[in-house]
Amino acid sequence: MQRKTILSGMRPTGRLHIGHLSVLENWVKLQEENDCYFMVADWHAITTAFENTEQIAANTRELVLDWLAAGLDPEKAAIFVQSKVQQHAELHLVFSMITPISWLERVPTYKDQIQQFGDQGKDINTYGFLGYPLLQAADILVYLADAVPIGQDQLPHLELTREVGRRFNYLYQTQLFPEPQAILGEVPLLPGLDGRKMSKSYGNDISMVEEPESLWQKIRQMVTDPARVRRQDPGNPDVCVVYTYQKIYNPAAIVEIAEGCRTAGIGCIDCKKQLAERLNEVMTPLRERRRHYSEQAGLVEEVLAAGRDKASRKAEATMQRVREALKF
Amino acid sequence: MQRKTILSGMRPTGRLHIGHLSVLENWVKLQEENDCYFMVADWHAITTAFENTEQIAANTRELVLDWLAAGLDPEKAAIFVQSKVQQHAELHLVFSMITPISWLERVPTYKDQIQQFGDQGKDINTYGFLGYPLLQAADILVYLADAVPIGQDQLPHLELTREVGRRFNYLYQTQLFPEPQAILGEVPLLPGLDGRKMSKSYGNDISMVEEPESLWQKIRQMVTDPARVRRQDPGNPDVCVVYTYQKIYNPAAIVEIAEGCRTAGIGCIDCKKQLAERLNEVMTPLRERRRHYSEQAGLVEEVLAAGRDKASRKAEATMQRVREALKF
Repeated sequence: MQRKTILSGMRPTGRLHIGHLSVLENWVKLQEENDCYFMVADWHAITTAFENTEQIAANTRELVLDWLAAGLDPEKAAIFVQSKVQQHAELHLVFSMITPISWLERVPTYKDQIQQFGDQGKDINTYGFLGYPLLQAADILVYLADAVPIGQDQLPHLELTREVGRRFNYLYQTQLFPEPQAILGEVPLLPGLDGRKMSKSYGNDISMVEEPESLWQKIRQMVTDPARVRRQDPGNPDVCVVYTYQKIYNPAAIVEIAEGCRTAGIGCIDCKKQLAERLNEVMTPLRERRRHYSEQAGLVEEVLAAGRDKASRKAEATMQRVREALKF
Repeated sequence: MQRKTILSGMRPTGRLHIGHLSVLENWVKLQEENDCYFMVADWHAITTAFENTEQIAANTRELVLDWLAAGLDPEKAAIFVQSKVQQHAELHLVFSMITPISWLERVPTYKDQIQQFGDQGKDINTYGFLGYPLLQAADILVYLADAVPIGQDQLPHLELTREVGRRFNYLYQTQLFPEPQAILGEVPLLPGLDGRKMSKSYGNDISMVEEPESLWQKIRQMVTDPARVRRQDPGNPDVCVVYTYQKIYNPAAIVEIAEGCRTAGIGCIDCKKQLAERLNEVMTPLRERRRHYSEQAGLVEEVLAAGRDKASRKAEATMQRVREALKF
């Protein structure tokens, strides 16, 4: 397979939970054979949280530690903070001049999200919020990325990225920008402890590197089939949160577990113990790596400085070609 | 008077005409006692002309030569190209996050201009065109400018600049941004040769450094009182383009000229000769300076490089404080 340039990122909104792990596992695989740029999207964070930026620096540090814990390797990929690479802002500004407002207004999530935030009493009807898919386009195209690992819901944004790149190429008679393709990873949706969407604000989340004792306390609380009241009642795994996790983290034993549940062969506590054991196996190297990295003073700063240098070089090379195309 | 920081700029759309001279004379005065930043607004140029950027580099050079001809002094003021100072783009991006779309939509010129360009078959309904007053706000505030020499029609833009700066100060608990004030120069409106608005596209313009022979040819064409058909007819100076110019360039003789016209004491040709003589006096040093500068290879580039350095230093100092305020 040919080496590709890949861009992805996350907003620094807090510690990652176990639901993010599959995304990161995918990044870890991608970094082996591609030129990867992984960005802490701090400018994006202020599109929806501009009144409260207090935590961004601390969250950035925690996010990078979570990334390193999951196995991102600063020797292989550029790990950097978006706002340290000013070329993102410059390309966003150039793109803004050639992008019809209607293209942005028709991004499917746009009006929905304004509504949703509005229902929470939060007005995000800003110029920057309207333009954030264009900032994403700049994030991607400033590295001339060929591919972007994203979720299904991000496909319209990627389509906009391609449209903007094509428009630039057409207007300025260049072939500078590629048409980046989606890498749609199989991202299993992990529910929270109570079966709802996992979210820190619901208090139903499991950290990516939960310590063994609190991991067990959390798994103990997980909602199982509510109809299975006593140990000897048969259960229905299809409505059980623990079973959803077992499918992902214990696939080798999944047939046996389902059978045991339906026949009351195993009890919920045993089932939960098995899950805790498996998750501990997954988390042990993550916890160790995280501790290793977090104990080295200045390491996160070094990683981000090196990542910024690498990202800046590539972004500046692109912008030189953009400025030439514009005849600036 | 206290030294102020002042920002102004022009788009690189072509050679300047005599109507721009009074603006530049004002800039020349301002540079004596203030820290002035004079910007070639190339990013602004593409808000309305993104399909055709071929001429921007050439126009930039001509514009700077016109500025130097008028007496702008690169030793005193920073003369630079906007797109070379990326901090404008960065601050614009930050501002975009905190600026309600409604603030931009209600800028009085916004819908008018879209309509006007639309009537010319030009669609400028872009994201960047909606946001260009915000780019102006960034242009001004990235230098912490106290004052901005502008025309009456730009007052709503300056008000938006103040609002955005106040909002930033309030949200991030800082006093970083000043509230820049307008310097409303007395800018006499010079009509074109035919009495309509002066514009290259109407072919009714006089260059800021028109050569003597073509200056005379143009002044000869100027529209006078159409009711004054013969030399001995009395004229009405109030409807005469030449008289409008005399008021500005020949104020010492203006009473005499009006009297001479009304009594048929002087003829239109004599009147025009007087005007040509006065304009030649004004233009002679401009032409000489322009020639002097344009003959020195690399001079414009040097001026712009020095200006960029000076502007970048100040803009970067501001951005460091912006990033601190954001806790980035």
